[in-house]
Amino acid sequence: MTVKKNFYSDNVSGAAPEVLEALVAANAGDTAPYGADPVTEGLAARFSDLFETPVEVYPVGTGTAANGLCASILSAPYGAIYLSDAGHLHGSECGGPEFWSGGNARTVPVATVDGRLQPGDLARLADEALARPATEVPPRAVSITQGTEAGTVYSLAEVRAIVEVARARNLLVHMDGARLANAVARLGCTPAEATWRLGVDLLSFGATKNGALTAEAVVIFNRELAASVRYRRRRAGHLFSKMRFLSVQLDAIVRDGLWLRNAAHANAMAQRIRDGLARIPGVRFPSPTEINLVLVALPQPVWDGLVADGYSFSRRGPMKDGVIRIACAFDTPVEAVDALLEAAYRHAGLSGGARVNGTAATPSAAPPSPPSPASRRG
Amino acid sequence: MTVKKNFYSDNVSGAAPEVLEALVAANAGDTAPYGADPVTEGLAARFSDLFETPVEVYPVGTGTAANGLCASILSAPYGAIYLSDAGHLHGSECGGPEFWSGGNARTVPVATVDGRLQPGDLARLADEALARPATEVPPRAVSITQGTEAGTVYSLAEVRAIVEVARARNLLVHMDGARLANAVARLGCTPAEATWRLGVDLLSFGATKNGALTAEAVVIFNRELAASVRYRRRRAGHLFSKMRFLSVQLDAIVRDGLWLRNAAHANAMAQRIRDGLARIPGVRFPSPTEINLVLVALPQPVWDGLVADGYSFSRRGPMKDGVIRIACAFDTPVEAVDALLEAAYRHAGLSGGARVNGTAATPSAAPPSPPSPASRRG
Amino acid sequence: MTVKKNFYSDNVSGAAPEVLEALVAANAGDTAPYGADPVTEGLAARFSDLFETPVEVYPVGTGTAANGLCASILSAPYGAIYLSDAGHLHGSECGGPEFWSGGNARTVPVATVDGRLQPGDLARLADEALARPATEVPPRAVSITQGTEAGTVYSLAEVRAIVEVARARNLLVHMDGARLANAVARLGCTPAEATWRLGVDLLSFGATKNGALTAEAVVIFNRELAASVRYRRRRAGHLFSKMRFLSVQLDAIVRDGLWLRNAAHANAMAQRIRDGLARIPGVRFPSPTEINLVLVALPQPVWDGLVADGYSFSRRGPMKDGVIRIACAFDTPVEAVDALLEAAYRHAGLSGGARVNGTAATPSAAPPSPPSPASRRG
Amino acid sequence: MTVKKNFYSDNVSGAAPEVLEALVAANAGDTAPYGADPVTEGLAARFSDLFETPVEVYPVGTGTAANGLCASILSAPYGAIYLSDAGHLHGSECGGPEFWSGGNARTVPVATVDGRLQPGDLARLADEALARPATEVPPRAVSITQGTEAGTVYSLAEVRAIVEVARARNLLVHMDGARLANAVARLGCTPAEATWRLGVDLLSFGATKNGALTAEAVVIFNRELAASVRYRRRRAGHLFSKMRFLSVQLDAIVRDGLWLRNAAHANAMAQRIRDGLARIPGVRFPSPTEINLVLVALPQPVWDGLVADGYSFSRRGPMKDGVIRIACAFDTPVEAVDALLEAAYRHAGLSGGARVNGTAATPSAAPPSPPSPASRRG
Repeated sequence: MTVKKNFYSDNVSGAAPEVLEALVAANAGDTAPYGADPVTEGLAARFSDLFETPVEVYPVGTGTAANGLCASILSAPYGAIYLSDAGHLHGSECGGPEFWSGGNARTVPVATVDGRLQPGDLARLADEALARPATEVPPRAVSITQGTEAGTVYSLAEVRAIVEVARARNLLVHMDGARLANAVARLGCTPAEATWRLGVDLLSFGATKNGALTAEAVVIFNRELAASVRYRRRRAGHLFSKMRFLSVQLDAIVRDGLWLRNAAHANAMAQRIRDGLARIPGVRFPSPTEINLVLVALPQPVWDGLVADGYSFSRRGPMKDGVIRIACAFDTPVEAVDALLEAAYRHAGLSGGARVNGTAATPSAAPPSPPSPASRRG
Repeated sequence: MTVKKNFYSDNVSGAAPEVLEALVAANAGDTAPYGADPVTEGLAARFSDLFETPVEVYPVGTGTAANGLCASILSAPYGAIYLSDAGHLHGSECGGPEFWSGGNARTVPVATVDGRLQPGDLARLADEALARPATEVPPRAVSITQGTEAGTVYSLAEVRAIVEVARARNLLVHMDGARLANAVARLGCTPAEATWRLGVDLLSFGATKNGALTAEAVVIFNRELAASVRYRRRRAGHLFSKMRFLSVQLDAIVRDGLWLRNAAHANAMAQRIRDGLARIPGVRFPSPTEINLVLVALPQPVWDGLVADGYSFSRRGPMKDGVIRIACAFDTPVEAVDALLEAAYRHAGLSGGARVNGTAATPSAAPPSPPSPASRRG
Repeated sequence: MTVKKNFYSDNVSGAAPEVLEALVAANAGDTAPYGADPVTEGLAARFSDLFETPVEVYPVGTGTAANGLCASILSAPYGAIYLSDAGHLHGSECGGPEFWSGGNARTVPVATVDGRLQPGDLARLADEALARPATEVPPRAVSITQGTEAGTVYSLAEVRAIVEVARARNLLVHMDGARLANAVARLGCTPAEATWRLGVDLLSFGATKNGALTAEAVVIFNRELAASVRYRRRRAGHLFSKMRFLSVQLDAIVRDGLWLRNAAHANAMAQRIRDGLARIPGVRFPSPTEINLVLVALPQPVWDGLVADGYSFSRRGPMKDGVIRIACAFDTPVEAVDALLEAAYRHAGLSGGARVNGTAATPSAAPPSPPSPASRRG
Repeated sequence: MTVKKNFYSDNVSGAAPEVLEALVAANAGDTAPYGADPVTEGLAARFSDLFETPVEVYPVGTGTAANGLCASILSAPYGAIYLSDAGHLHGSECGGPEFWSGGNARTVPVATVDGRLQPGDLARLADEALARPATEVPPRAVSITQGTEAGTVYSLAEVRAIVEVARARNLLVHMDGARLANAVARLGCTPAEATWRLGVDLLSFGATKNGALTAEAVVIFNRELAASVRYRRRRAGHLFSKMRFLSVQLDAIVRDGLWLRNAAHANAMAQRIRDGLARIPGVRFPSPTEINLVLVALPQPVWDGLVADGYSFSRRGPMKDGVIRIACAFDTPVEAVDALLEAAYRHAGLSGGARVNGTAATPSAAPPSPPSPASRRG
């Protein structure tokens, strides 16, 4: 078997074995369609356990669907959603919020620091809009991505500060949790502590990037917002007739902590890449590496050499000025990481000694000890 | 194992083994996301072969998504879509066309005969609207369901007649083919003969009801209509990041004629139920049984008895006045059909002799010989 | 001056002198734009007086805007509005409700009796939809046109019966009052009795057909529905910068009972036409004449003759089978009515004696005594 | 009569006498509704003459309607419109573009220099989006405001440079001409030279701010874009039944050059204010004064004094850091301008001599000689 060279995204992987097995097992027998099957009906209880509070859970096929569905609720009857200018919801979903809301939502992009929306910016921009009620789209919500598109996480205190700004202006709070697992694994907190206990109203819960095939979920903490979800999902074609096949993916991913184990591994592999690349002179990291994404600007010979070797990375999203994104997944082998580092060293002209003292000194794929930077900020 | 008693819909089944195996096989290794994988990229060629003409193919998660996506294209920049008053697109998708089109589509329901839209009605209604251009929503398209919600099929001549009415009024033609396989199996024609050779512009190609897990496709014959599909699908959340998992389902279902074998079996089982129930005095069939759906009004004791036995049928959709729908699927065992008939006879008080002369005379589950009624009408 | 021959609609007239004078008077001086002028700010008080209850009033430019704005509120977050199949909102506004609601509204046309929606039909159709919550667009509202497109009025009891059906199903109630003045004049009741005391939540208040130039208003009785109106109106371009020019029209039309005097005259002229035409053998009236519209099928020679004379009538809307609509306005001269009748008699070959005994016996344009038929039904 | 103190906007004025007279004259007699009257039907010819090319003209009630209607066409089937971050279309119409397009339009605000969009910024931003076709809202159009919200005009060369960038990327070009008259008067060019000869496809033609009551128009140079306008206007409630009352305003405003005379006077009054205020030490002008708007930051005592005197200015829109907007209109008396300046001098503590040498030296309200700065840049 060839060594993995595709670090383009965490969605180039297939599904985790546990999820695939659950899917196969779910195939047997007849069951009620459109979500009236037992697994789907049990999801609310399973996620309520996970989040330690009663929630409603609506499986959908993709993160764009989860975000769009949330956007349509957040903006009703109509209004603006403030979010990171690198936010997937704003720049990577072909205008999903406008579509899902029937033209009722406007996304307002806000510049970020290390991928994190700053509460002061939110306050200022929302206040400017609120001061012009007759003409401006009224602010209704803020959406934060946890972990961020820049490979960072918001500390709990940072989320809390944003929620405070939002609450003071009567804005709802959405969390785009496409990589919530990676963030929770990094923060070392509980799912509850990372979400509703901070004041999050709606969550796009990601599973696909973390080991599922095609399943995400809208998780509703603020249940007053749930009234129209069923209809909205149906008309958009995300109420699957054989819904069991989505629900078992979500069930399997959160069962026995699989989601956090998968995410912790992906995070550790990214950290290993970060640490290894840091040894190369001229390498520049525009932001910290706190989850499974490494944003990095490589010296030209290293970049050219890796591309010639067949490696694949992303240059989309928040990356500019030669910055690429290296994404690790739940199934990224440590051998593949080390092979990548070896290749980078080779193209950088680093001697073998440096290499021995470098990655060779990291003996295993065990997750690193609890991360200090994020905790310190939390 | 218990005998199947769930005849509620053809989507109460799981997936066909061939499809599930293809899905599992597709899990290995990394691949490009968002449809840049080889299987997805090969779908256009596969479907072009199937339909004997160059087509574009866009996998989506559900039939509602396929129909909604088509509706948004059909109605642009805005207009009315004429369709059966029992059409899924009109009455079973929570206003999907309005949603997908951003308020640009209106569906105009038309009464049908045996589930089939009549060309004369289409002509009359469209002409009335065209006569009021300043005030009425302009007619843009007709959508026909093949096979219909009433368990019937349009003959090729009937489709042709509708297309002629449409073309004369500059209307586009959409086919909701959630059960296209069942119709093609029934008609004994080629997929090309059933669709674009008659003038169909856009097709919602169904797979889920016929052995897939969660896959349908928009097939575009009139490629001038394709320009916006990619964007529309993306923003609605039907461009799956791990798109290979949808595409292999579609690939497997049309490979080696699996889709037609599955459909022919489901059709045969429905015919067997129809023939069997016809022996019960007082049974009434509101429409012919030409695909895998039997619409039937049962005597009250038979209905009560079957429900008490744990049988499940549908009373939704075009059924009124005590009519239920009995749906057979690709995996409906002949034993389950015979058990259902036995139970019905019992509740009807029919003697054993009648039963022997009835279903016992049908020796096997082999598909019936080519159907004559539909061919005669074709 | 030539005698009026244009009976096509009640909007072929210009404005009433009182309204035009108010407009000219309003031109002097600077004033705050966007509705912050004194006349606009006083409209709520004026209409609250008129309706004997606190209301909110939002001027807009057209009836389509008033109806569309109402539809967007009625259907939120999304749902179906039941209305007459001849309803302007459904068939004469190019899909306004879908547009204004961003695809959230569906209008469901219901057959009527003499232009009046029947409560039993509303109950049956809404109940059918409510029984299919997972698939059908949910019923949210009923909209009735008072007076109707057929030239009739709902009695107060008839409105009450519809409201009862609506309330029992949690539906909001909208009244399209493009000709509310004509209906109130006919019913001989107060504006309050005709609207909110019966349970009407939202009203499209018509002025243009009744003597204004370009002004209508959304009147909100159920003030819980008002939150989003200001924004919705603004984005649709119906918050006029020089709003005073709309508001003075509305102010003038309801001042000193002008709206009812105008409407009563139009009603009387229609009644005079009805009574006069009834003398012609072969004339057929498909519905009663209770407001300012006469629906009538004329013998072919009469129709041909009047057209040759240069008369203009409408054949749009609810008219079929040779039925035309003759519309009278606030400024229709009695002489023009009599000239029309004379011409019709002439084309019908009626002798002078018949004519003398006919219209000549009606000596003046004074409004007729209080109408008995509608009151009887009220 | 009191001296005008309301400089808040150019829409605080009433209508020009010529327009009001035309409106009153249009009231007589019956005419066909919904734009089938002779004046409306003659508008296309009148505007084709004005612009020296065949155009289509669609009157609407407000500038927001004109812009929204254009946005819905520009963005179809869906896409992004690039425009000034101070653009009315983006920030002052409550999300009009999203609404009018049913969620198909996104406005992308771009920072400006003196209110003018820079072609280089447009090129860069559009290219970034075009490089991400699978995820980003596709660029479809650019919209420029002529004259700008900052009181400046684009030279013809500047418009041409933007059009070149747009054409190279297949973008349509819209001009928001709410103050086109002021710009044309300033530029000293023909309407044709200012618009379609530069490549403008669609124009929002403003009249209300320049002497009309409630009339604007969509002028279509690129007639391929006209197909859906009629429907879009109708459903939004901007096809007025008594359309003559809008059309005569447009007819009167462009007849005999009234629009340019009105605009030139407003421009001259603004120039007079600019020149006068420039004498006050500490006054700061953030941008040139090229049309009828003066953006200025006044010393605090001057501001406080004027407010105490009852003067009214705008602080909305592109103004920050103490900058206010002083707007002159077609009917702003020179005496009112001089009174304003006198008051400002008084609050600034300027001696009478300065005043005599200042505004007193400008003897009349005659329009200034042809402006050199804009011509020089043209």
